[in-house]
Amino acid sequence: MNPSALSTRDAQLPAAYSDRLEVLSLAPLWTALHALLPPERQTRVVPHRWRWSDLRAPLLEAARLVPIEQAERRVLVLCNPGLPGNFSATATLYAGLQIILPGEAAPSHHHTAAALRLIVEGEGAYTTVDGVKCAMEPGDFIITPPMRWHDHGHEGREPVIWLDGLDIPLVRSVEANWASAMKPASPPATETDSSQDEFTAAGLVPRQSRYEETGYPQVRWPWRTARAALAAMAATAPRRAPVVLRHVNPRTGEYPLRTMGSEARWLRPGEETRAERRTASEVVHVIEGQGESRVGDQTLDWQAGDVFVVPPWHWTTHRNRSGQAPACLFHLNDEPALRSLGLWQMEVRGAAEGEPSDCKNEVRK
Amino acid sequence: MNPSALSTRDAQLPAAYSDRLEVLSLAPLWTALHALLPPERQTRVVPHRWRWSDLRAPLLEAARLVPIEQAERRVLVLCNPGLPGNFSATATLYAGLQIILPGEAAPSHHHTAAALRLIVEGEGAYTTVDGVKCAMEPGDFIITPPMRWHDHGHEGREPVIWLDGLDIPLVRSVEANWASAMKPASPPATETDSSQDEFTAAGLVPRQSRYEETGYPQVRWPWRTARAALAAMAATAPRRAPVVLRHVNPRTGEYPLRTMGSEARWLRPGEETRAERRTASEVVHVIEGQGESRVGDQTLDWQAGDVFVVPPWHWTTHRNRSGQAPACLFHLNDEPALRSLGLWQMEVRGAAEGEPSDCKNEVRK
Amino acid sequence: MNPSALSTRDAQLPAAYSDRLEVLSLAPLWTALHALLPPERQTRVVPHRWRWSDLRAPLLEAARLVPIEQAERRVLVLCNPGLPGNFSATATLYAGLQIILPGEAAPSHHHTAAALRLIVEGEGAYTTVDGVKCAMEPGDFIITPPMRWHDHGHEGREPVIWLDGLDIPLVRSVEANWASAMKPASPPATETDSSQDEFTAAGLVPRQSRYEETGYPQVRWPWRTARAALAAMAATAPRRAPVVLRHVNPRTGEYPLRTMGSEARWLRPGEETRAERRTASEVVHVIEGQGESRVGDQTLDWQAGDVFVVPPWHWTTHRNRSGQAPACLFHLNDEPALRSLGLWQMEVRGAAEGEPSDCKNEVRK
Amino acid sequence: MNPSALSTRDAQLPAAYSDRLEVLSLAPLWTALHALLPPERQTRVVPHRWRWSDLRAPLLEAARLVPIEQAERRVLVLCNPGLPGNFSATATLYAGLQIILPGEAAPSHHHTAAALRLIVEGEGAYTTVDGVKCAMEPGDFIITPPMRWHDHGHEGREPVIWLDGLDIPLVRSVEANWASAMKPASPPATETDSSQDEFTAAGLVPRQSRYEETGYPQVRWPWRTARAALAAMAATAPRRAPVVLRHVNPRTGEYPLRTMGSEARWLRPGEETRAERRTASEVVHVIEGQGESRVGDQTLDWQAGDVFVVPPWHWTTHRNRSGQAPACLFHLNDEPALRSLGLWQMEVRGAAEGEPSDCKNEVRK
Repeated sequence: MNPSALSTRDAQLPAAYSDRLEVLSLAPLWTALHALLPPERQTRVVPHRWRWSDLRAPLLEAARLVPIEQAERRVLVLCNPGLPGNFSATATLYAGLQIILPGEAAPSHHHTAAALRLIVEGEGAYTTVDGVKCAMEPGDFIITPPMRWHDHGHEGREPVIWLDGLDIPLVRSVEANWASAMKPASPPATETDSSQDEFTAAGLVPRQSRYEETGYPQVRWPWRTARAALAAMAATAPRRAPVVLRHVNPRTGEYPLRTMGSEARWLRPGEETRAERRTASEVVHVIEGQGESRVGDQTLDWQAGDVFVVPPWHWTTHRNRSGQAPACLFHLNDEPALRSLGLWQMEVRGAAEGEPSDCKNEVRK
Repeated sequence: MNPSALSTRDAQLPAAYSDRLEVLSLAPLWTALHALLPPERQTRVVPHRWRWSDLRAPLLEAARLVPIEQAERRVLVLCNPGLPGNFSATATLYAGLQIILPGEAAPSHHHTAAALRLIVEGEGAYTTVDGVKCAMEPGDFIITPPMRWHDHGHEGREPVIWLDGLDIPLVRSVEANWASAMKPASPPATETDSSQDEFTAAGLVPRQSRYEETGYPQVRWPWRTARAALAAMAATAPRRAPVVLRHVNPRTGEYPLRTMGSEARWLRPGEETRAERRTASEVVHVIEGQGESRVGDQTLDWQAGDVFVVPPWHWTTHRNRSGQAPACLFHLNDEPALRSLGLWQMEVRGAAEGEPSDCKNEVRK
Repeated sequence: MNPSALSTRDAQLPAAYSDRLEVLSLAPLWTALHALLPPERQTRVVPHRWRWSDLRAPLLEAARLVPIEQAERRVLVLCNPGLPGNFSATATLYAGLQIILPGEAAPSHHHTAAALRLIVEGEGAYTTVDGVKCAMEPGDFIITPPMRWHDHGHEGREPVIWLDGLDIPLVRSVEANWASAMKPASPPATETDSSQDEFTAAGLVPRQSRYEETGYPQVRWPWRTARAALAAMAATAPRRAPVVLRHVNPRTGEYPLRTMGSEARWLRPGEETRAERRTASEVVHVIEGQGESRVGDQTLDWQAGDVFVVPPWHWTTHRNRSGQAPACLFHLNDEPALRSLGLWQMEVRGAAEGEPSDCKNEVRK
Repeated sequence: MNPSALSTRDAQLPAAYSDRLEVLSLAPLWTALHALLPPERQTRVVPHRWRWSDLRAPLLEAARLVPIEQAERRVLVLCNPGLPGNFSATATLYAGLQIILPGEAAPSHHHTAAALRLIVEGEGAYTTVDGVKCAMEPGDFIITPPMRWHDHGHEGREPVIWLDGLDIPLVRSVEANWASAMKPASPPATETDSSQDEFTAAGLVPRQSRYEETGYPQVRWPWRTARAALAAMAATAPRRAPVVLRHVNPRTGEYPLRTMGSEARWLRPGEETRAERRTASEVVHVIEGQGESRVGDQTLDWQAGDVFVVPPWHWTTHRNRSGQAPACLFHLNDEPALRSLGLWQMEVRGAAEGEPSDCKNEVRK
């Protein structure tokens, strides 16, 4: 909700009448009609890019300055300049960079907000979700579904940094936000995640799984696997076809989480995407390569480790500046929430007459 | 989103470091962790009741003071005292009372927000949704799905007042709010609504409808029909069983709208309901009868025409004060949105051991 | 399966080779390829009509000749002349007329086959399904889902006759047919069916039902209600639009049973329907009126109480011969089974170019 | 349907009455009640095994004796001894072994029956489905959905043999069987199948596919991939947990076809499975290894290339006789059809008290 309160008084009304309305907790709609139902889509979110070269040093310094025991989660939050004091990257999405040092442990908690991670740097850390231990290697994508106990640990030798994405702003908007108190001692991890044994091939699912049935059969998508899949798709796709893979629940084909979706994109050397705009907002992380994105009327250049925001309904293109190497982007969005609320819409600039502006073969809710 | 900005500075950090974070649009999570992930469910919404005896006169006065041409929609908005300047009844729901005089017409528009109406007083008005004309009689429930042209007219002899419910606050929260400019001339209504000919019996749907397939086969639930169904249910239900009917799409059994749900409740003479609390918020309108509701630690007495708000996660009971007559309540809620976002939860006080706290036979998304 | 065994020998092959194949339980496909995958749709079922005037006397005589204790179910089965010895009306559907006398009781049993009834004549009988007692009045439609205990009783004064429909031939085809032994003593009925209290209006379902959750919330569709709904639909439908209501589960909008569907059709005075053909087969019962149906190259005239069969993929029209009174047909079909097996297809003769041959607004599985 | 016609006469009835019933195409139910609704599950299908060592020579001989142009499909059909003249492996499933020589082409046709292939021997052949060319390597699994044009060709140097599975008996039972005339000239294959570029990893699907949207995004499951997935699952699964992977549509998690399901099973050295019985019937092909299966009261030993039948509701165990090497089975069944008809049931012998007899994590329709 827009924090700047709207006017609830109509100057043309008799003051006594207006006073009476106020006493009764009533307000005339007509003073605010076009603010409440505006003739143009509006967003307070602004396009913004955080450079990895700016982020790394403050993260390492935070690790020196703040003990993990005190911080619980040692995170620098990416605050959209259009949403001051909101700790939000977009109106619905929270994003932050978390750092953990060898031997440290972030204690177990759980909350109604959903979380996901994209590993940026370092090896040897892990996330444990309800006793299932997920290795964290750079580029890996890991989800922490709502209300499941999770903690982080580190058995390696160097700092590990990852990008956290949560739907905290959305969950706060609907006043359904709640977290458990921390648990100092976590249950020991007893299993590795299913991406290593039960979900290793397309179109094949265990008839009977050895994991507990939680509705989230896969919680980790190793980058090694995802990158190979992107490369295979890029190798034979027609020249102009986008190379984008969506993370889905392999048992249902639906988004793994109800509120946040994610995709991995491969940009061929020199490729520039068609302009699109969507009612969803996005946080984009550069896994590898360098390039630039046009978001509304701004151009954001980027390289590996950078993060940038695409506000809703902004025309957007992405371009790989390299003529030799691919570039890979990780997209985090609120598309599942908007779809299930019936508010999803997408347009493609230059879509031919009669061509649907929404892509074919999309996951449908 | 909570409009009171959170602190983004940690007093224990070196000022130079904090300054640098600020310049970089970063904030330390640990200063706000428990505000962002609070240990208790929180809401700014407060229980509140608007009395019909307070509302009717200001509505009639608004009709005298403000021409419909100028107001476009002549509505007094029910503003929750906990959400000043928000034009909101709860964090997700907008509610207002609209008045239209004989011969007036509220021009056609459409918007991404979903709307619904519950007729409070008067006869002869109608709503037209994409050329389908819905009669409005007291107690009738009518939906206006997102992005469908609709206008209101009046062929009767006395003022007509209804309760509007919209999901504007929710749609604003996800920045997907948008409305068309008004259309001065509406298309003439060509058909009456399907509740009069194609949807008149339980468990029977047309193999082939004469109405356009829009995904909203039924847009009106006449009170005459709904009241008879409540009375039939009450006549044979066990003494302690709640008598509550949910409005559903008869072709799918799902909520007619994706974001807002609604129910009609019958309270037997003297009946008091079991205490429940839900993550959903509610706006309740009294169709007939008199009684009181306990909402959190407040008691709200009510009679026909009154409206009150139930904030999320407040223990709530409803009581019919009459020993002779039934009381009927109309409940508007954001349950469909919370369910599809995975945030729905409900508890029943005194539910027996082993009894699920959620009701059996609930609509499931 | 076609009972006439196909030839498994190819006369052109060396006899020794053919003998060897036979010993090995092998057969050359090419001798039977076009019998197994024929170039035209085939059916052994023939159009056939049973006249009520022929059926009634033998039913009454059966009631005299055979005690209910001995018969368990006193039924004359409608045997399609194209399927001798099969006790089948079509390749998938069984149909029979059952008679019960005042004071008699048909003992409780259950089976994997699904059953349904359409009451033809008489008052005072009832069916009990898992302790829920369904009154039987002429024209009422009642389902008995698979594996639910059910019995029939009679508290009235005259013989009661109804049409039974089961999916026995289909269930036998997939070798999933099984029935319990009879239970001599049935559990006493403790409740009336939900069509009398919880499902009495379109688009309204109990939030919390007083009935056990079985997946079959509604088991009876009273004719009084269905006829009124047909009349309402006929009153305003465009002249050429078919007036057909499908029985659905009011909680899901889907067919009440997984294998058999049913519809009630209203033919206006003098109306003749458009020719259609479907991959489904049908058993049609005349509830009221008189007319004739063209099925393939046969014309079947009918009046109240008659039953006739429409084989798969036969062009079919129905005509009301009366210029004054409506005619009402009850259609039982295997459409749900064919849809869920991916084998449903329908064509409308004279459908305009570009018009889909399947009807809009159809229930979709 | 059981081809042995049931008796439609009751010897105890007066002959004149019985004659009259016969003339009227009526039959007394009570003479056939327990045949139509039997107190035990019944099947005419018998357990049977075809040895690869018996099959290979007749197949090569068929290739010598019958030109492909004449046979159209050069197949030896596996005829269940319990279903003489039916060209059926079970009551619902057809199975046959097809052989194609280098340079041959089986012309294009399509039909309402669904088909699938499991490659047994040889390299260089391919199946083309609507212009998409699927390579055939031993162990590969390929589906041909209903009503899609398909042909087979061979660019290699040695005979290629595969197992065909179709739902012909089921489709014949519901009289929905139909095939096009052959097309002598097939459209040239223009694309390789999606398992090579778009579906190469678990839980990742293209946002926008380069393939036409047909509802069958994946039509080939390479054995190389499936075997690696089985090995990964076996490597970490608890000792007693079954290692079985089901083929699913990666966009929906559902069976790729509506009527037939399939699974690949890994038997660890020496492993013996728990006894299970199912209402589904099965055709099992041995991809590698050697062992034996107990089916009802018969023991069938097997090695690579063998095929055997499991009739419905027969207690079944599988055992790997080797102490060193794994064994791999391919299971073809009619489970999707039985599930969608509501007739699926499964029991596990020795399932602990309170343990559901159906497996957890099963695909649900």
